Amino acid sequence: MADVTPVVGIIMGSNSDMPTMEACMKQLDEFGIPYEVKVASAHRKPLEVHEWASTAEERGIRVIIAAAGKAAHLGGVVAAYTPCPVICVPMKTSDLGGLDSLLSMVQMPSGVPVACVAINGAKNAAILALQMLGTGDDERRAQMAAYKKDMADAS
Amino acid sequence: MADVTPVVGIIMGSNSDMPTMEACMKQLDEFGIPYEVKVASAHRKPLEVHEWASTAEERGIRVIIAAAGKAAHLGGVVAAYTPCPVICVPMKTSDLGGLDSLLSMVQMPSGVPVACVAINGAKNAAILALQMLGTGDDERRAQMAAYKKDMADAS
Amino acid sequence: MADVTPVVGIIMGSNSDMPTMEACMKQLDEFGIPYEVKVASAHRKPLEVHEWASTAEERGIRVIIAAAGKAAHLGGVVAAYTPCPVICVPMKTSDLGGLDSLLSMVQMPSGVPVACVAINGAKNAAILALQMLGTGDDERRAQMAAYKKDMADAS
Amino acid sequence: MADVTPVVGIIMGSNSDMPTMEACMKQLDEFGIPYEVKVASAHRKPLEVHEWASTAEERGIRVIIAAAGKAAHLGGVVAAYTPCPVICVPMKTSDLGGLDSLLSMVQMPSGVPVACVAINGAKNAAILALQMLGTGDDERRAQMAAYKKDMADAS
Amino acid sequence: MADVTPVVGIIMGSNSDMPTMEACMKQLDEFGIPYEVKVASAHRKPLEVHEWASTAEERGIRVIIAAAGKAAHLGGVVAAYTPCPVICVPMKTSDLGGLDSLLSMVQMPSGVPVACVAINGAKNAAILALQMLGTGDDERRAQMAAYKKDMADAS
Amino acid sequence: MADVTPVVGIIMGSNSDMPTMEACMKQLDEFGIPYEVKVASAHRKPLEVHEWASTAEERGIRVIIAAAGKAAHLGGVVAAYTPCPVICVPMKTSDLGGLDSLLSMVQMPSGVPVACVAINGAKNAAILALQMLGTGDDERRAQMAAYKKDMADAS
Amino acid sequence: MADVTPVVGIIMGSNSDMPTMEACMKQLDEFGIPYEVKVASAHRKPLEVHEWASTAEERGIRVIIAAAGKAAHLGGVVAAYTPCPVICVPMKTSDLGGLDSLLSMVQMPSGVPVACVAINGAKNAAILALQMLGTGDDERRAQMAAYKKDMADAS
Amino acid sequence: MADVTPVVGIIMGSNSDMPTMEACMKQLDEFGIPYEVKVASAHRKPLEVHEWASTAEERGIRVIIAAAGKAAHLGGVVAAYTPCPVICVPMKTSDLGGLDSLLSMVQMPSGVPVACVAINGAKNAAILALQMLGTGDDERRAQMAAYKKDMADAS
Repeated sequence: MADVTPVVGIIMGSNSDMPTMEACMKQLDEFGIPYEVKVASAHRKPLEVHEWASTAEERGIRVIIAAAGKAAHLGGVVAAYTPCPVICVPMKTSDLGGLDSLLSMVQMPSGVPVACVAINGAKNAAILALQMLGTGDDERRAQMAAYKKDMADAS
Repeated sequence: MADVTPVVGIIMGSNSDMPTMEACMKQLDEFGIPYEVKVASAHRKPLEVHEWASTAEERGIRVIIAAAGKAAHLGGVVAAYTPCPVICVPMKTSDLGGLDSLLSMVQMPSGVPVACVAINGAKNAAILALQMLGTGDDERRAQMAAYKKDMADAS
Repeated sequence: MADVTPVVGIIMGSNSDMPTMEACMKQLDEFGIPYEVKVASAHRKPLEVHEWASTAEERGIRVIIAAAGKAAHLGGVVAAYTPCPVICVPMKTSDLGGLDSLLSMVQMPSGVPVACVAINGAKNAAILALQMLGTGDDERRAQMAAYKKDMADAS
Repeated sequence: MADVTPVVGIIMGSNSDMPTMEACMKQLDEFGIPYEVKVASAHRKPLEVHEWASTAEERGIRVIIAAAGKAAHLGGVVAAYTPCPVICVPMKTSDLGGLDSLLSMVQMPSGVPVACVAINGAKNAAILALQMLGTGDDERRAQMAAYKKDMADAS
Repeated sequence: MADVTPVVGIIMGSNSDMPTMEACMKQLDEFGIPYEVKVASAHRKPLEVHEWASTAEERGIRVIIAAAGKAAHLGGVVAAYTPCPVICVPMKTSDLGGLDSLLSMVQMPSGVPVACVAINGAKNAAILALQMLGTGDDERRAQMAAYKKDMADAS
Repeated sequence: MADVTPVVGIIMGSNSDMPTMEACMKQLDEFGIPYEVKVASAHRKPLEVHEWASTAEERGIRVIIAAAGKAAHLGGVVAAYTPCPVICVPMKTSDLGGLDSLLSMVQMPSGVPVACVAINGAKNAAILALQMLGTGDDERRAQMAAYKKDMADAS
Repeated sequence: MADVTPVVGIIMGSNSDMPTMEACMKQLDEFGIPYEVKVASAHRKPLEVHEWASTAEERGIRVIIAAAGKAAHLGGVVAAYTPCPVICVPMKTSDLGGLDSLLSMVQMPSGVPVACVAINGAKNAAILALQMLGTGDDERRAQMAAYKKDMADAS
Repeated sequence: MADVTPVVGIIMGSNSDMPTMEACMKQLDEFGIPYEVKVASAHRKPLEVHEWASTAEERGIRVIIAAAGKAAHLGGVVAAYTPCPVICVPMKTSDLGGLDSLLSMVQMPSGVPVACVAINGAKNAAILALQMLGTGDDERRAQMAAYKKDMADAS
């Protein structure tokens, strides 16, 4: 895939989010959507996240997927620096079950939305990315329609 | 706007959601994004919702915005019938504050995501719709970038 | 039981709900209530659920039991298509313990109720089905009274 | 209605629940379902509740609707003494919004279910009562089907 | 202890509460407080609970300890039938962690209080029983003071 | 009442708790139970609270009622310094409805229980105090029994 | 105060936070602690916040107070860019009461703490700032001790 | 370290908090911040806690770290007796996940703040202590800046 420009950028706050997010990458692979992956905490590596997010669009990224847990600011921080839609995956937490991650992500203030999926909803983030790309791409939209049809037909 | 095909479809479960959702329509107006509006409960008028959702794509709709409260199934029901991305706006409720609407919308099962924004996040739903359209439309993306710049520059 | 028309229809959103719901079927068996079982997600197989629910009454079904987890729309979706009462069993979830399933099921809007039992309350769903059938059937009501008496007398 | 035997028994824990429950009575009136109303706290008047509940069936009651708030034991207490199905309406509370009433009602232990509707879901309790009566009464079931059709057709 | 009249009555809703409640009995043993133990669900065996609770005072019981989980009505039901103070121990639950048990117990309506301790607070229920008995018994109060002193002195 | 030794000590964290707690005092007055009232924050006036609590028993106090809101430590702090039972009244809060006060009071660790009543359960605190005093006082117990009978007989 | 270098920097996400935060400024005024105030959303004006936070220390700021609501990322974002301690004031929200703001602020991941105070705890943020400054300033610490003594002595 | 005066005092409510708090001590060791450790329950050993807290400042302590679970009063109790800032670490609990500990700590009333970190945020408590000490110590502040830089540079 060396000569394919990624259109989805996945960023996660910690290496510990990787096992959960593999379902996202697998689904993007199945859809044939090229992506890049970044692990960087919004709090520990703010400049790196800033740099990654603010240059995403010019790198060719059209949809960003951000996964983080607890006070999960990563999605909001990335959303602050990019015109691309940011899909947020709140990570399940061992104490509050992910309610903290969810509220930290979904309750974004006026002006800077994110698109939040379910707690640990890594696979759904990939599907939502396909749907977003489908808004301007008939082929992608048809691919999504086919995916839905396959689900409905599965025994 | 008689000769403009709507690209965003707004659906809400009840007329009581209208005052909150006006912020969404106003923002879409400001962005110049043509939209259509439908009021229909997923539970009281299931066939009407089914019909509206399953024909949305062929009507030209590319992004759907669904607003509902309490056991807010509308977004999920619509998502079941369309390949378009569905932005969900959980309505604040008088008893549980909207936690019920939020969990009913965001915790979608594997295979059928929605893009959830904050409780009563009507304006943000419009912005997210612009971002989604921007994935395949340089002009829309530039419009979003300009919007962000204006926010940052506002005194 | 080949020549017995089911009067209870059990539907669940996922095969993973089956182990929990077996307590429901076992209890219906003990009561001698004939039932049918369907596994179909309201989101992944909406037309199949629509078909199943809207023909339930004419198949002879008088009570429906719906089990689902997370954004548990299945009960509400089924209730939209049938005049029969719908008993909802919210599934326990690994992140929020089932609070999401519970609120998604019980907080139904005006006009379309469901009858919600406890999180994972599969056995109680069967007992409630018997009670519902007993409203128009003296024998079933006597059976329920006997069941209660047995509980009270158990050592 | 002097010569009509009530088939629904409504019980509420406090006179303060009456304004909310009037929507229930109004809906039963519209359905032409005869009912009786009792105000008695499970905690302050336990023997009166015991007497009312344990004689309900022989009085001709086939469905019970119980409304209570906070540590809302009324529905469970009534369910302990009758073979009839008990529909519970958790009352909204001024401090916890009704989450206390809801959990106190819906989380019934194995063996003694209740049929819980939404917080303050008084009207839906009446509709659910009609649905329950419809399990053994073709006319009531047709009435319910007509009610659903009217909702779907309403503009 | 054959000739000692119990002054504390312990009641629990299910045999599954016994392992948790053993810490309560052990502490009462250490305090030398005679007690009786009853296992009976308020919902499954309402008359047995009614009988036990309404005769407790005349049997010599002065403090009641009630343990139950989920929609934990046992304490409130017992409190309805006795002038003795009722200490409630909300049981931890596998889905909501015991928040359901806690709210079902502590949120008692006006007129019929219970004395709620922490989730699974079995040992503390015994200590609170000693404190209650100490209100009218100098020796018991001195015993409580000594217990506190021992805790403070423990290394 | 100059020559009557108080047997109940009421302490509250703030003057703002007084309007709610007046229901407690009124009920104690009706029961003819002499009491003293103290307003002192466990955090702002720790030594004063310490002094009040550790001398309560020798002043003749047999039951303490503590009311506080938010991180409501007052009951636990008082309980640390007295062998008397401490009834806690969690105050409703404007942000979290009193869930914070409730959990801060009821979840006491092993060794130092409190007797928690409902959020804003001021009147019930007085009734519970009567019940506690009744454990060692036949007259008080009879008074409680009479109070319950009056409630049951009230129309 | 033109020639006094601020040692506390107050930042809030929105002008709507100002009325609540005035209690903070008033208390700092009473303590004679010089401060500066900035209103800037972490999401709408990320570069401005970045600039403000990363130069705070060199401007002489030693303690930062950040107030924000909903998905309240402001404190964490500021903490990412400064070695100074960041006190967070979660704003009460109209839907979830501030639980969202609280969890979004307090649940910071490893490596980048904030010092969270109560929901709307604006005055306490000022007191905590004094305490922090007191760690290296005997006069400030004495001032804090005096403040505590005044509270304890207040009638 | 025999001749080094501790500047941080760590107190925890129970020996069971020690494994979690070891991350705090390890981090203080890495920072070279001398500390003392105390295990004492605010409820079981109130006088010992009182003594420890009220003499902390004169022993040279400048920052206190308090860890406790459930109705976690320890931080507030300590804060009542010292002018030093008190960092609170709410312990995760087995039933409510630590929501009880968190609310019991963070929701402190006006006049007596604590600085709350995340549930089980032991390591962050140490980092926050360094930041507090840095307000009056250029070297400590530089150390903190270096720590942040190392985090940002870590691969």
